Amino acid sequence: MKKLLLLFLSSILLISCNQKQEKIIDNTQFSAEEKIDSTNIKTLFNTALTEGKSYEWLRDLTQNIGGRLSGSPEAEKAVIWGEKLMKEVGLDSVWLQPVMVPHWVRGEKEVATYTINDIQKDVPICALGFSIATPKTGILAEVIEVKSLKEAEEIGEKLRGKIIFFNGAFDNTIINTFQAYGGCAGQRYAGAMVCGKFGAKAVIVRSMTNSIDDYPHTGTMSYGDLPKEQYIPTAAISSRAAEILSTDLKKDPTLKFYFKQNCETLADAPSFNVVGEIKGAKTPENIMVVGGHLDSWDLGEGAHDDGAGIVQSLEVAYLFKKNNIKLKNTLRVVFFMNEENGIRGALKYAELAKLNKEKHIAGLESDEGGHTPRGFSIDANTVNTKLLQSWKKLLTPYGLHDLDKGSSGADISPLKAENVTLVGYKPDSQRYFDYHHSSTDTFDKVNKRELELGSASMASIIYLMDKYLYNNTPVKP
Amino acid sequence: MKKLLLLFLSSILLISCNQKQEKIIDNTQFSAEEKIDSTNIKTLFNTALTEGKSYEWLRDLTQNIGGRLSGSPEAEKAVIWGEKLMKEVGLDSVWLQPVMVPHWVRGEKEVATYTINDIQKDVPICALGFSIATPKTGILAEVIEVKSLKEAEEIGEKLRGKIIFFNGAFDNTIINTFQAYGGCAGQRYAGAMVCGKFGAKAVIVRSMTNSIDDYPHTGTMSYGDLPKEQYIPTAAISSRAAEILSTDLKKDPTLKFYFKQNCETLADAPSFNVVGEIKGAKTPENIMVVGGHLDSWDLGEGAHDDGAGIVQSLEVAYLFKKNNIKLKNTLRVVFFMNEENGIRGALKYAELAKLNKEKHIAGLESDEGGHTPRGFSIDANTVNTKLLQSWKKLLTPYGLHDLDKGSSGADISPLKAENVTLVGYKPDSQRYFDYHHSSTDTFDKVNKRELELGSASMASIIYLMDKYLYNNTPVKP
Repeated sequence: MKKLLLLFLSSILLISCNQKQEKIIDNTQFSAEEKIDSTNIKTLFNTALTEGKSYEWLRDLTQNIGGRLSGSPEAEKAVIWGEKLMKEVGLDSVWLQPVMVPHWVRGEKEVATYTINDIQKDVPICALGFSIATPKTGILAEVIEVKSLKEAEEIGEKLRGKIIFFNGAFDNTIINTFQAYGGCAGQRYAGAMVCGKFGAKAVIVRSMTNSIDDYPHTGTMSYGDLPKEQYIPTAAISSRAAEILSTDLKKDPTLKFYFKQNCETLADAPSFNVVGEIKGAKTPENIMVVGGHLDSWDLGEGAHDDGAGIVQSLEVAYLFKKNNIKLKNTLRVVFFMNEENGIRGALKYAELAKLNKEKHIAGLESDEGGHTPRGFSIDANTVNTKLLQSWKKLLTPYGLHDLDKGSSGADISPLKAENVTLVGYKPDSQRYFDYHHSSTDTFDKVNKRELELGSASMASIIYLMDKYLYNNTPVKP
Repeated sequence: MKKLLLLFLSSILLISCNQKQEKIIDNTQFSAEEKIDSTNIKTLFNTALTEGKSYEWLRDLTQNIGGRLSGSPEAEKAVIWGEKLMKEVGLDSVWLQPVMVPHWVRGEKEVATYTINDIQKDVPICALGFSIATPKTGILAEVIEVKSLKEAEEIGEKLRGKIIFFNGAFDNTIINTFQAYGGCAGQRYAGAMVCGKFGAKAVIVRSMTNSIDDYPHTGTMSYGDLPKEQYIPTAAISSRAAEILSTDLKKDPTLKFYFKQNCETLADAPSFNVVGEIKGAKTPENIMVVGGHLDSWDLGEGAHDDGAGIVQSLEVAYLFKKNNIKLKNTLRVVFFMNEENGIRGALKYAELAKLNKEKHIAGLESDEGGHTPRGFSIDANTVNTKLLQSWKKLLTPYGLHDLDKGSSGADISPLKAENVTLVGYKPDSQRYFDYHHSSTDTFDKVNKRELELGSASMASIIYLMDKYLYNNTPVKP
């Protein structure tokens, strides 16, 4: 009995202790206006966490359409899906912006292999976006391993006839994984450009990920100004295969690597940005954009990249409508097409905004996955940057601590101007590159609460920008 | 060509922008001493992220031993595993602390079902820890649904002969999920205690989770002071089954629920805490404890709860050894036994510490999962709380923003005293209760980087406490 009582008491202790751990939103430190803001932000979060729609929207997009590379039938289905969904949410108006997009197709599944000590090793491989195909019979050649574009440039003419293997790994000591990506992505983007001019036969690249696994991660590449006859095929191999190949090359530097891919760049294809808006109640001419990109790579389901950003952006509008919170300015939701290989949708959107003399005051993009919220990255003038940072105490109860200056996102960046405040939503980055551009970027990797917390975080910063931003813009339009 | 150039430029832009996003550790704001600390903390993180062992240790524990409930053969294997591993890491001394633990066994898999409109519905169910069995033929009875212990108390005598269904759901609007847990766990713990005294036949409880899914989540319960003849069987059903049953009860309040379980509390069993330490270089009599609990529930693999905490605690010691950072005080790693259903290991540890007149100055526990770091919860006197909070600028570059007062952890809490600084490691809580105490708490749910970031976070606060804590203790021992 005594021990049961003890157990009971210790459990009760645990429960009450855990209750104490919750960060109470301490309104006493707030001004009257901040109390209103705090209440409205709490309402946005409560609605997202109890009546959120984003997760089911994402399930629909990823399970019923799946990967949706620009120009593909799936991308066109996604356009129709997006338009229909925006109408269902009840935006005041919904329309499509036509845009021509690149149309690259992967073709049949790639194969790669090599033999060492009479053991044949099959290598998980995928073509990079915009790469040309290998000859039908594939390419077989000796391999030169390098760690960077600079190292390849220095080797120069000796690259001729070889397959160049870029094995620059993520620097795992960098806490923000996007910076580690930034340090490596150049070899994927420009590896073939650099090696093609020296007559290399092909380029293979270690996948861009923190993780050691068996999934090749694709991504866009470019031949730059190379004449067409210097174009060479390029592909990514899994990080584990890269480690093994590197080891095997030390044992046998003359081993020959074989791969075959059948990809092709077709003529540009017609596509669309999907746009919807809620008219502003007071100054409808002022536009705040919230968006992500509708296209994705073809290997996975485009769940974190960027299905999450799409459904969160629309959920921002849903949260305001659901709570009958009227914004002063127009809120425009944009599902941008073709971020992955061309940002044509983003450029078209900015072009039309200019043509139509639209007055954008703010942009918010979600394109770093659907993980737990960490904050926002602010690309704005000094006054507005400080203004946004002054909202910190309203945001930290939701785990939104990071409010540093930085870039916003590829799709809204063409809107950059002195008086336009651009913001990138920053979820936790630790798992993002485990999935990025690979077959593992699937719906089951997205957590419902984390996704909804992101929607509410985004709605909160939109709410605050709507209320405070315009009057604080230093040079009034 | 122009468009390719544009693409190239936009991509380069993206890469360089992403690089800007990394929060640079700005040493200029640091004192000379803080610069040393900042460098040492960076070293601890770098080592964890490039040479960390915790993930492979966790793989071994979860894949080769698995779930390890107190008193089970698996728990005893885990003791041997822990002792061997601590020796391999090269701690100065490693020993076992004998402790008698409760020994509850689940028996054969539980079954539950009911029929409505001639459709039979099978219900995912699991017995709660310490529950008695149903009769061999099971229990069949009408169901009364309640949302809280209070509601059950109020119904009182009318509970007689019925199965009481506690359907209090997590409040999903609470950001820290541990508080939502705190708001519900009482019905699991005391449901049978309250209803048994009114002659109810059994208690079933909605699983403690934010998620709507098909997995029953177990956990400990107690009959308190009830006479044995009032003990009734109690079990958890999955959250989705709870939602469906609730709907069905509205359609047919007389439906009869059937379940059968075969669990049993055996005589207490001998077990052990596993303890190892690195002797302090200057004041070895001062002890800092870092630990988690070695036991787990039987349904999953005890990966997040608390395999993660175990391997992180040992990795703290590994990180100091690997970097040859000598601590002034003794660092003691403890794998506590029986946190889940009795905290006997924790009580034994505190009892022996008192008996042996050991001087504990600090304790750190990791028992909230292996997710991405958010901060620490501080249970200390005012002076030391402020001291720990003054380290914020050293910790925020690693995502460690939360440094609030709060509880530390069940296993170190018996060490609480005026001059003992207790700290709970706080990873992100959003996904934790998706897995907690269920069959889904498995190795694949743990992310390597997130786990390692946790180890390094814990090592960092130990490093700082070792250096600064003792001299700032207001009442010197």
